[in-house]
Amino acid sequence: MTAKLYCFGESGNAYKAALTLTLAQMEWVPVFVDFFNGETRQPPFRALNEMGEVPVLVDGDTVLTQSAVIQDYVSSKTGKLGGRSAAERREVLRWMFWDNHKLSGQVGATRFLMNFLPPEKRPAEVIAFQQGRLKATYTVLNDHLASRDWMVGDQVSLADTACCGYLFYPEPFGFDRKDWPHVDRWLDRIAALPGWQPPYDMMPGNPSDRA
Amino acid sequence: MTAKLYCFGESGNAYKAALTLTLAQMEWVPVFVDFFNGETRQPPFRALNEMGEVPVLVDGDTVLTQSAVIQDYVSSKTGKLGGRSAAERREVLRWMFWDNHKLSGQVGATRFLMNFLPPEKRPAEVIAFQQGRLKATYTVLNDHLASRDWMVGDQVSLADTACCGYLFYPEPFGFDRKDWPHVDRWLDRIAALPGWQPPYDMMPGNPSDRA
Repeated sequence: MTAKLYCFGESGNAYKAALTLTLAQMEWVPVFVDFFNGETRQPPFRALNEMGEVPVLVDGDTVLTQSAVIQDYVSSKTGKLGGRSAAERREVLRWMFWDNHKLSGQVGATRFLMNFLPPEKRPAEVIAFQQGRLKATYTVLNDHLASRDWMVGDQVSLADTACCGYLFYPEPFGFDRKDWPHVDRWLDRIAALPGWQPPYDMMPGNPSDRA
Repeated sequence: MTAKLYCFGESGNAYKAALTLTLAQMEWVPVFVDFFNGETRQPPFRALNEMGEVPVLVDGDTVLTQSAVIQDYVSSKTGKLGGRSAAERREVLRWMFWDNHKLSGQVGATRFLMNFLPPEKRPAEVIAFQQGRLKATYTVLNDHLASRDWMVGDQVSLADTACCGYLFYPEPFGFDRKDWPHVDRWLDRIAALPGWQPPYDMMPGNPSDRA
């Protein structure tokens, strides 16, 4: 049975789930959610996820939301990407929470404000503030990767597919790979994994649809 | 052996860990971290946690950071607060990630800007923006609690000790319990649990130290 991932191309949180499903070699198909026309605010979608967010994974009778919970489920089901020991699994979880709190949580909002709001509605002070906070976040990530190939242990894990989620997008949000060389090389390593695709190739919907 | 929790009173993320340790009846003592004088930016603290954040739990040889990872560890060790089944555990994890991403991640920053920055440095546009986003978050929480006593299942869990973390603080951050009646009653239920204390009673350090 093929799992369904409710998603749209612009969502870095959905991309984390899509990339995890792909690297774990689970069969899945995307189901397009028309976020930009308000689908996630409507009752049918709210019945699927009261949080009103993508991604949502439907795998048989199992319905899951929150990218990290989907990642955890895929890893449990396939035995892949979860770390080799209890200590590694805890370290993977640690970086997944850090990502949600400090990295994706802030990048997602900043990129949205800078790219997907009409130009006259973009709040300059908010964007500048968030970009400032994100510099501290990128520094933690870059320093962590200075002496290692992967976020945890010696192979790719959910910590990598979480933290990279927003960093492969082409829209500007104040992050330039050249400024963060260890992050840059780590993203190249991820992009070299079998099956990897950039977000807009892996999921339906992208900014040119609305141009 | 008594676990040590590196913390300070103002940190809602540390409070989540402190409250979880207390409700799970694990023995612990607080170790004060002088965040407001820059201790978390100094090399000794960075050696303990490269993320430069509290809380940090030291339990024998185990050193853990990220409040949710500490919560998960305490639950695994004591068998408490984790949910009764695999489905409940996944639901607990889902709300913990939602909390980190949408609730605590935003409340923490907003409360900091409104209370712990000098008045002339408080960015009004950023605060207004974050308070607007938080209204959607409080709505999800209040709606979820409309028909239930606890976040997951029929007893208190890590989902409760995560989501309530910042909501017991007295400083203003745009959240008034009266506006969210289901959240209000849920906070009363948590406060009635044996051992519960408000943040500034449970951990050392509070704003009056700096007054």
